[in-house]
Amino acid sequence: MALRTRDQYLSALKQMRPNIHKFGEVIEDVTTHPVTRRVVESHARGIDAAHDPKLADIFSTKSSLTGEVIHRNSSLMTSPEEMIYNSKFKRKMYHLTGSCTGGLCVGWNGLNVMWSVTSEVDAALGTDYHARLKEWGLGFQKKGLIVCGALTDAKGNRKLKPHQQADLDHNVRIVERRPDGIVIRGAKHMICGVAAADEIFVLPGSGYGEADKDFALVCVVPKDIEGLTIVEARRPSDSRELEQGFDIPTETGITQAYLLFQDVFVPNERVFLAGEFQYTASILTRFTATYRACIGACVAGQGDVMVGAAALIARANGLSAKAFRDKLTHMELNNETTFSMGVGAIALGKMHPSGVWLADSLTGHANKILVATLPYETKRLCQEVGGGIVETGCMPSYADFTSPDYGHLIQKYLKAGAGSAETRARVARLIEWLTIGAGVPGCMHGGGSPDGARMVVFGASPLEEYAGYAHSLAGIQEDLPEPAK
Amino acid sequence: MALRTRDQYLSALKQMRPNIHKFGEVIEDVTTHPVTRRVVESHARGIDAAHDPKLADIFSTKSSLTGEVIHRNSSLMTSPEEMIYNSKFKRKMYHLTGSCTGGLCVGWNGLNVMWSVTSEVDAALGTDYHARLKEWGLGFQKKGLIVCGALTDAKGNRKLKPHQQADLDHNVRIVERRPDGIVIRGAKHMICGVAAADEIFVLPGSGYGEADKDFALVCVVPKDIEGLTIVEARRPSDSRELEQGFDIPTETGITQAYLLFQDVFVPNERVFLAGEFQYTASILTRFTATYRACIGACVAGQGDVMVGAAALIARANGLSAKAFRDKLTHMELNNETTFSMGVGAIALGKMHPSGVWLADSLTGHANKILVATLPYETKRLCQEVGGGIVETGCMPSYADFTSPDYGHLIQKYLKAGAGSAETRARVARLIEWLTIGAGVPGCMHGGGSPDGARMVVFGASPLEEYAGYAHSLAGIQEDLPEPAK
Amino acid sequence: MALRTRDQYLSALKQMRPNIHKFGEVIEDVTTHPVTRRVVESHARGIDAAHDPKLADIFSTKSSLTGEVIHRNSSLMTSPEEMIYNSKFKRKMYHLTGSCTGGLCVGWNGLNVMWSVTSEVDAALGTDYHARLKEWGLGFQKKGLIVCGALTDAKGNRKLKPHQQADLDHNVRIVERRPDGIVIRGAKHMICGVAAADEIFVLPGSGYGEADKDFALVCVVPKDIEGLTIVEARRPSDSRELEQGFDIPTETGITQAYLLFQDVFVPNERVFLAGEFQYTASILTRFTATYRACIGACVAGQGDVMVGAAALIARANGLSAKAFRDKLTHMELNNETTFSMGVGAIALGKMHPSGVWLADSLTGHANKILVATLPYETKRLCQEVGGGIVETGCMPSYADFTSPDYGHLIQKYLKAGAGSAETRARVARLIEWLTIGAGVPGCMHGGGSPDGARMVVFGASPLEEYAGYAHSLAGIQEDLPEPAK
Amino acid sequence: MALRTRDQYLSALKQMRPNIHKFGEVIEDVTTHPVTRRVVESHARGIDAAHDPKLADIFSTKSSLTGEVIHRNSSLMTSPEEMIYNSKFKRKMYHLTGSCTGGLCVGWNGLNVMWSVTSEVDAALGTDYHARLKEWGLGFQKKGLIVCGALTDAKGNRKLKPHQQADLDHNVRIVERRPDGIVIRGAKHMICGVAAADEIFVLPGSGYGEADKDFALVCVVPKDIEGLTIVEARRPSDSRELEQGFDIPTETGITQAYLLFQDVFVPNERVFLAGEFQYTASILTRFTATYRACIGACVAGQGDVMVGAAALIARANGLSAKAFRDKLTHMELNNETTFSMGVGAIALGKMHPSGVWLADSLTGHANKILVATLPYETKRLCQEVGGGIVETGCMPSYADFTSPDYGHLIQKYLKAGAGSAETRARVARLIEWLTIGAGVPGCMHGGGSPDGARMVVFGASPLEEYAGYAHSLAGIQEDLPEPAK
Repeated sequence: MALRTRDQYLSALKQMRPNIHKFGEVIEDVTTHPVTRRVVESHARGIDAAHDPKLADIFSTKSSLTGEVIHRNSSLMTSPEEMIYNSKFKRKMYHLTGSCTGGLCVGWNGLNVMWSVTSEVDAALGTDYHARLKEWGLGFQKKGLIVCGALTDAKGNRKLKPHQQADLDHNVRIVERRPDGIVIRGAKHMICGVAAADEIFVLPGSGYGEADKDFALVCVVPKDIEGLTIVEARRPSDSRELEQGFDIPTETGITQAYLLFQDVFVPNERVFLAGEFQYTASILTRFTATYRACIGACVAGQGDVMVGAAALIARANGLSAKAFRDKLTHMELNNETTFSMGVGAIALGKMHPSGVWLADSLTGHANKILVATLPYETKRLCQEVGGGIVETGCMPSYADFTSPDYGHLIQKYLKAGAGSAETRARVARLIEWLTIGAGVPGCMHGGGSPDGARMVVFGASPLEEYAGYAHSLAGIQEDLPEPAK
Repeated sequence: MALRTRDQYLSALKQMRPNIHKFGEVIEDVTTHPVTRRVVESHARGIDAAHDPKLADIFSTKSSLTGEVIHRNSSLMTSPEEMIYNSKFKRKMYHLTGSCTGGLCVGWNGLNVMWSVTSEVDAALGTDYHARLKEWGLGFQKKGLIVCGALTDAKGNRKLKPHQQADLDHNVRIVERRPDGIVIRGAKHMICGVAAADEIFVLPGSGYGEADKDFALVCVVPKDIEGLTIVEARRPSDSRELEQGFDIPTETGITQAYLLFQDVFVPNERVFLAGEFQYTASILTRFTATYRACIGACVAGQGDVMVGAAALIARANGLSAKAFRDKLTHMELNNETTFSMGVGAIALGKMHPSGVWLADSLTGHANKILVATLPYETKRLCQEVGGGIVETGCMPSYADFTSPDYGHLIQKYLKAGAGSAETRARVARLIEWLTIGAGVPGCMHGGGSPDGARMVVFGASPLEEYAGYAHSLAGIQEDLPEPAK
Repeated sequence: MALRTRDQYLSALKQMRPNIHKFGEVIEDVTTHPVTRRVVESHARGIDAAHDPKLADIFSTKSSLTGEVIHRNSSLMTSPEEMIYNSKFKRKMYHLTGSCTGGLCVGWNGLNVMWSVTSEVDAALGTDYHARLKEWGLGFQKKGLIVCGALTDAKGNRKLKPHQQADLDHNVRIVERRPDGIVIRGAKHMICGVAAADEIFVLPGSGYGEADKDFALVCVVPKDIEGLTIVEARRPSDSRELEQGFDIPTETGITQAYLLFQDVFVPNERVFLAGEFQYTASILTRFTATYRACIGACVAGQGDVMVGAAALIARANGLSAKAFRDKLTHMELNNETTFSMGVGAIALGKMHPSGVWLADSLTGHANKILVATLPYETKRLCQEVGGGIVETGCMPSYADFTSPDYGHLIQKYLKAGAGSAETRARVARLIEWLTIGAGVPGCMHGGGSPDGARMVVFGASPLEEYAGYAHSLAGIQEDLPEPAK
Repeated sequence: MALRTRDQYLSALKQMRPNIHKFGEVIEDVTTHPVTRRVVESHARGIDAAHDPKLADIFSTKSSLTGEVIHRNSSLMTSPEEMIYNSKFKRKMYHLTGSCTGGLCVGWNGLNVMWSVTSEVDAALGTDYHARLKEWGLGFQKKGLIVCGALTDAKGNRKLKPHQQADLDHNVRIVERRPDGIVIRGAKHMICGVAAADEIFVLPGSGYGEADKDFALVCVVPKDIEGLTIVEARRPSDSRELEQGFDIPTETGITQAYLLFQDVFVPNERVFLAGEFQYTASILTRFTATYRACIGACVAGQGDVMVGAAALIARANGLSAKAFRDKLTHMELNNETTFSMGVGAIALGKMHPSGVWLADSLTGHANKILVATLPYETKRLCQEVGGGIVETGCMPSYADFTSPDYGHLIQKYLKAGAGSAETRARVARLIEWLTIGAGVPGCMHGGGSPDGARMVVFGASPLEEYAGYAHSLAGIQEDLPEPAK
């Protein structure tokens, strides 16, 4: 069985040890608890999609290892075309769910990046990480798992390296090496889609030197592994998820969790790096190149939904969507920009000898900078089309909308153009959710900050080569070096 | 007594009829109920400020009518300097409260605009509106009231005029004229600061023609007048206002209400326009000119707080605020732009024969367009400085932060640079509140949409005059008219 | 001989009939005349590059028709990889010449587009255009020609279609059909690189209906064909090309010509469409998709030179290039954006049954919008780094720089940081040339206006599909159609 | 005689010693030489305007010293209203001339700034600069002079202070102090409007410390003073000024000169600072505050002409100006932004005890940043409206336009919508001149660079005060200081 069904997926989640918390309480069943049911539904739609004939080309593929049909999120991307499907997959997931792809994103990328890196580590150091990874990967494909990924450490003081922190646990680290595995401690913060995942791909949060070798670790753990406590973070207007009615109008959503590893034992077969610090830079570089190429598709996909929602609210207000043609075109331009720029970064990539495709780092990171800016503009335009009720969701609550005393008046006065008062309120709530509510994905800092991307763009651009072109074109006969300090 | 004290203010609010609702329930005491206590505190700080020697020049002035010291929000602005104080007042209010000035804004402007308009109506039509207004204004000053203002109607279908609506009540209208007053019905939407106000200044939401003369009405009513039901709208993360802890870290805030007028009787002495439709365009033009000039100070003041919060979060993360100098400078530039552009619109205004200053319409509306765009950029920059935890407020809840089971771990891992984990969380929550939470003021559509402002800019710019300059400079000898259709 | 040498190229140009004019005079030898020698040098560098081992992979390839090595500009692009080379070719040409690729661009694209279209015309209508084109294409490849391309008609009144114009010649048209060919009349405006080209690929300037079928024509003519008068347009500071010294510091450049066809006979073997109006829309769509995908590389390449020039002027001013790191990074971001977005449009394209690759229209056109905006920002940043002397080229002329009376003073005072006064002046003149001088390529309107691109973006985006996603996510139960007019 | 006439002005210029050069030659009569006649015409229009009843309120005023009517450019600005007239004056000058106000700008500001500073110097040091300045100022007013101003030094290496330069002459300095005056040497670069001026107001180019006290000098010299050699700088397409026809369509224009002071003796009565370095920072701060407040009006005025030119070219192309309503509105917004923001900076200023108004530094400098960015956008929009012929002025030359051989064809094909081919060409040339030609004023670096303005904005914004607001609102109980290095 490679293509798991929704039912199989949900019952797997139900059987896990309850170790997820929010609002001070443990969540017994993530598939039904109001705090997590939406993120589970999002992922379930990603599973359904692999069974949908219209979407199967995006959501499933043949395994390069076994030839069997598998869910695409467990595939090795062995060509630019297959990596472009990563982008298409994410854009479509946003169409289906309105928000972040979560657990269908990072584990996939982690498998691919570590596929290339473990082959190098093994070749250089005689380790057997690649074989372990392949074995685990075959299970990933066969069981049709959802594997979220955890990079961002708690970090502590941003000026200091991991081993310089007053509290060494601020970055996840190996506290004990045993013959049969390692013991890890520390925290990973703001991890997407954990509640809906089967397993967690743990990756280093930065590139490390020798002094930080205990932080150079890669492994995959079951979500409910002993010693792991998970606490879900808040999101804008998240308390509404506990309420009745349509003030959160979607059945879908995303979550971000804090993972607290308290001396968790990970057996060797799930460990894919343990101290080989000199490979952490490659892991980061390759991970972020692909991630930042493809994240352009995420914000494009959410932008598409905003375009559609803007059209709907115009009509609900009594106007034609075409009256906002300029703004809609601008939103569409933003969407296509980050999407196709990311596809360009993929096409400009190269094949790794291990057989997986690597996206281009320079243009992938350039894309991330736009991902951190253009969606703010798209949201603003969407709010501008929608009017005051969408800007800050400025409508009475569902409880007021249905009040026996004055609910009829709220409804009387919210009715405007096409559709009922409820329809108008639902569209407005959707735009609120997308632009200033729980549906806003953390795309500016997700996968690293834009300033980090700017550093890569500056560092990877060949400044002296470009200076040489100018030098030659201007007919200059002498050197023009940087001034001495 | 012209300068009311905080205690006098609070006890006046407590004595009013409870007619404000949220979440399906009536609010008995707005000064203590979690839904409204923050907006009341914001306004109370505006009252305190008039008693603070360091702020008294901004928050108090001498009445041009009586020579007595009054709260500035009840003053007639009889010179550009006094209107610039309107801007300074708003910027400072944001410093003190972090969000919208609410009830200290629109009533003030309404008094001034109607001062000029009623003098024209009376001169032309022999009415006595100006004397009524003066009488009411003297009370406003003497009692030191807070008077919010209501312009935006429910509107209904945006393509149709008020008298064309299927439901005539979609715009507030006169349903009956009696010898001693008028009866009004309809709804005003998204009205700021009502819960903290003593009275409500009702103004037309648009300029009207003769067919809409029943909608041409101006009056001031006590907030708890019979027949008026008030329902507070939601705001992002507003449910947190009902929670314990610091997930909303401020003691201040803003609210926006829906006002449902069900055949409310307004006595003549409080009616300042009743059917004289031909003056509604002037009301709108003058109101928006001043409002949009001064709203630049609102977003500047909130931007100042974001600059400060960005500096704090940098330090809490372990970094120097100066590491973000470029971004802070950009934020400061945005703040000074809307502030000083608004002051420019004031300085370019003119004196009305009735003795009040009118801001320049063209540049006031131009400012509004920037008010609808630059703050989005400022918020983005603030989120960029702050990192992932501020972008969507991605931290566990206060209940988790203080959980006996794992709260110590959350705190251990949220600690980063200067200050405690709680301090870092509080700053991050403040930025969340300012940029994607309940503190976001509705400045894009508040006081009218940017597209409306663009229409004014295009309409008020003398295109043919400018074409004439180009025509002359290019040495052209023939006419270049617009093509026939 | 497929890879022509520089000498062969130059002597071919010298042998042509002199039919190019500027400043009221005919140009006898385009290779030496100051008005055209720079554009010829630019193209000669493109020919040299095919012989340069370091550049040969970009500038040469194997013919898909004959297997011989050919100059890449005559190739059929039979895969996305080959079309990406079109982008790389253009970016590199800008590195080598500082400005527009001219005659090495449009003929190449024309061959590819017509390869696909003629195969369709022939299949549907039984014509033999494809065979004619193949025959001509083999000569293009074998002779190593440079073929510029002409789309933009004089157009006349922009509100009217070609057949509605008062003067039918405003768009190039067939005025006579003979057994052995056609006679054409009209003007093509603003055609790049004509002076340096061997032949001209004439294509329709728009998509046409039946009433305009005489304007539906495609052919290739020798540049010096009888009846064709060519007049070069002005460019900023073009008179300096006639002066001594380094006020234009480059040996390279671009030109744009007006082509005046006065009843030019074109024999059948050079005619590839003659009246089949129903294919003109496809020609335009396919041409602009590729062109607008790849033009992102043009402005990226020029932007690279600006990055380099900015680094040099900083040093010549006495500063480190790194002092302008933020601005340089922003410039680099703009360059990589249009480049990789264009590559993305290529990768998102599809194969035509005739064997050539077609770029994606939606994202190609989206790229054009950015090409019309981002370079203005890049130029501004370059001018900002350079200081006052680069902003408007504010330095005395070469004649003053070398004046026996006061030239030593000019030189004394222009000296600043690294390098001589002449070096500083040359870099400053290069930046002037790139940002506000003769090197500015017409990239906003070249290949069509950004508003045209916006129409494609809006038209090609599936608005109703996006509305459907929002409709579904918001849980709406009724239709929300566009309002009736 | 206070209001000089055009004839008086022109004959004064004719009588001066010819010391202005361009293209290696001396200019005998600046009023007729093609290199300088346009800038003289521009200034003559400024003189005419004072006699024009419709413009006299802007261009003339009553002297605060004598009560006589004077040209406004020699006035002391004793109130915000009078300083706002400085802005209005500049905007109107651009309407009349299309480009920079030149000699009607800096001398005026210099007089006002030195009015305040000399009063302070005298009070502190017992000098008599203020009396000297007043005496000179009375002559300025009485003779109706045009006094350009010179601040920007040659500077040399940007990393070094004046006294650290290898060549001390790189900044203008006192080389000898005599009982009756001082001798100065050095160069001032890029000085606007010198050719059209009577005198030159020399001011320091930066704030200086004691080691640079020889550079702390202020004086006014006649333009043709012995020892001063003037060389005009190039501007884009400036050679066209020597040509026949309308390729430069305007009769007006601007110039920028290099002033070479070779041991120039300045008598004491024209010296207003000579070594009192401690006042140079005040001079710079006050000068730039006003200058940068008012420069917003300059770019607004040119932007107005671009709005008009855009409307004309649309019509000449056959379209309605209203088809470009969005773009025109955006251009108008940019114009009103820098204009009214500058007026705001004036209104936020304060009175100096000496009786002149000083603009606000923070907002004045903030305005400068926008002046360095928004006009690039306005130009881009203007080029976008105009189409390909305006983008780079892509039309044949006047010589070609009137060629006996093919000029009729050029005219035939340039004709499009309303008006003749010549009219369309003239409008297109005007837009070229305004956006990429000789009419482009150097507003990015004129009066100092935007990075300098950014430093002022950051420095003048009270970061810790803003941090305090955030600290208080977030309810934080501990200090959050900057980290130790």
